[in-house]
Amino acid sequence: MTQTTSGMFDRIQRPTLLLNSAIAQENIHRIAIKAREQGVRFRPHFKTHQSAVIGEWFRSEGVTAITVSSVEMAQYFAQAGWYDITLAFPVNWRQIESLGVLSRQIRLGLLVESPETVQFLGERLDSPVDLWFKVDTGNHRTGLPWDQPAAFCQLAAQVFNYSNLHLRGLLTHAGNTYNARGAVQVCQLYLQSLDRIIAVQRALEGAGFRGIQISVGDTPSTSLCPTFGPVDEIRPGNFIFYDAQMLNVGACTSNQIAVTLACPVVASHPERSEVVVYGGAIHLSKDFVREGDQMHYGLVALPQGDGWSAPLPGAWVRSLSQEHGMIHIPPEDFSRIRVGDILSILPAHSCLTVQVMGEYLTLQGEVIPTLNRQPMA
Amino acid sequence: MTQTTSGMFDRIQRPTLLLNSAIAQENIHRIAIKAREQGVRFRPHFKTHQSAVIGEWFRSEGVTAITVSSVEMAQYFAQAGWYDITLAFPVNWRQIESLGVLSRQIRLGLLVESPETVQFLGERLDSPVDLWFKVDTGNHRTGLPWDQPAAFCQLAAQVFNYSNLHLRGLLTHAGNTYNARGAVQVCQLYLQSLDRIIAVQRALEGAGFRGIQISVGDTPSTSLCPTFGPVDEIRPGNFIFYDAQMLNVGACTSNQIAVTLACPVVASHPERSEVVVYGGAIHLSKDFVREGDQMHYGLVALPQGDGWSAPLPGAWVRSLSQEHGMIHIPPEDFSRIRVGDILSILPAHSCLTVQVMGEYLTLQGEVIPTLNRQPMA
Repeated sequence: MTQTTSGMFDRIQRPTLLLNSAIAQENIHRIAIKAREQGVRFRPHFKTHQSAVIGEWFRSEGVTAITVSSVEMAQYFAQAGWYDITLAFPVNWRQIESLGVLSRQIRLGLLVESPETVQFLGERLDSPVDLWFKVDTGNHRTGLPWDQPAAFCQLAAQVFNYSNLHLRGLLTHAGNTYNARGAVQVCQLYLQSLDRIIAVQRALEGAGFRGIQISVGDTPSTSLCPTFGPVDEIRPGNFIFYDAQMLNVGACTSNQIAVTLACPVVASHPERSEVVVYGGAIHLSKDFVREGDQMHYGLVALPQGDGWSAPLPGAWVRSLSQEHGMIHIPPEDFSRIRVGDILSILPAHSCLTVQVMGEYLTLQGEVIPTLNRQPMA
Repeated sequence: MTQTTSGMFDRIQRPTLLLNSAIAQENIHRIAIKAREQGVRFRPHFKTHQSAVIGEWFRSEGVTAITVSSVEMAQYFAQAGWYDITLAFPVNWRQIESLGVLSRQIRLGLLVESPETVQFLGERLDSPVDLWFKVDTGNHRTGLPWDQPAAFCQLAAQVFNYSNLHLRGLLTHAGNTYNARGAVQVCQLYLQSLDRIIAVQRALEGAGFRGIQISVGDTPSTSLCPTFGPVDEIRPGNFIFYDAQMLNVGACTSNQIAVTLACPVVASHPERSEVVVYGGAIHLSKDFVREGDQMHYGLVALPQGDGWSAPLPGAWVRSLSQEHGMIHIPPEDFSRIRVGDILSILPAHSCLTVQVMGEYLTLQGEVIPTLNRQPMA
């Protein structure tokens, strides 16, 4: 091992998710300020970090309302003292008992998009919940299409049949911004999405439904759009760590990326300017970045002091199998890297990398667990 | 919930990895017989199932030697009573202490491909280990290229300097068969790979090194090639469960696939003939199947009795986000599926799905844990 590194890197034996807490806290602070200045509720999505410890960093920025994507995550953060929680996933009927328990413990927000689910909840919950109508503004993942105002009005009227259901507003995820490049494209998509959800809001108001809030929030538009417009809350998640996908979109700079996967180099192939690291699909996830016809699974930095360098230009994760990462290194950097060294991989998609790794090691040497390293409830 | 299902499906609340033990045991039996008939050692790769319970199914077929892909997996299966274990991953120098402990407990096989690693092991291990030279026969993941016989002879001579290192043979993984289609293409690649590794064996024998064994074994060629040729052992892993990738290669039939992910339907989009299930990248992994210009993340079956149906023709997982699976269902089947129902997803890549799910539910209702549901060592 010829690499000159600090004590922390010397102790790393296997793929380890490193967290630069200062960068993450600065990322939180920046968006918290932006939301506060615009008078918008900041309801961050906690599916990215999945950690009660990291949740406290948000609390110290004044955050009191959060977003999660599963019943288990809602239970975990309720346990950690969070009271106002939106479960931003279409209601899973099969977890109705757990939803009932949660509705008695916290202020629970649920997403609905069909009369069947409204009826199901109305008949089966005995404590009140907030409902958000999921609006598909063009992303085509799920939600009621924005151009069907009559369907929204019908759904709203149905909600009023049930005293335990409270219509809080409209919610969308403009996930198509993930495929955009740069602020202009991202903000165009954001504004298009906003126009569409406002059209639904107006239709509902025209039909006599008042106080319909608007909830939006993907990381690209939250990061890049100077103003959020007439919305009530934003729900970004990924911005706390960012990643190679967000760098590719232009939503962050490389020095705003707060997590890397430290991977031992296990083989070297000078003839094709590649090294193999211990760090594969089970550590990074197999999500990827598409750049034109090419795809890659992450960018590559070197340990530097107690952290990591800027990404090496022209270096990327070419391929991943279960435990192997095949890394292209440009010839000018190749000679610096030896078997036994550590490379710091900037993941394609930090949310999924966090999910598979289950815990963080901060640059100060502290281990931070996530939900997935807790005993199951 | 209008679906008519057995008691087991009725109890499923969230994404659950179902295992048809009878199919898995039949898959094991078929390859065990094939290996025995050809006088070849069957050293299955346990990275696919990662379970001590399932390991016993191999033991009852007479298997005594296994393959793993990490130090932790070696520790776990050593604990479960396995003695002859090859760690089929380039030696990670940073885990030398754990390797030392293992080498005193079991017959440990390690993969080397460089003089630096041979020297490293020779100087640091005090108990003997078997070495396999990793040969790159054209897959270009890692290994010493097959067309450099002098490098192999040099490495072999170096090994003989160390009394704790025992050269057992040559090992390759012809992973390029994963991109082939059908028996003819797969077996052509297998024979090419075999020719190449035999060329290295002859070069070593020509230089006076005797008893050099050959270890091969990817699932497509193990499944499809009628004879293995002059090899000493095979190391397939995936064949125990197979998956949509292997179906696409032609390495299995759909009724040989032994695992599916049971996923609750949470939203329905008749206008685009899609449903959304609770079951995303964190449950299936984000590995994919490439068919021509298209890619998908799995195939779709329906619960049937105590198991699942054949895959629905023309149905596939179009897209995955963290928890959402977007499923295309052809119009003729669409009307059969309601919110609250269960779909059985045949994963793109069962090894990675097992890894992220961490446990199985058999069709008899038994929970089988893997390494990843055990307390960490």
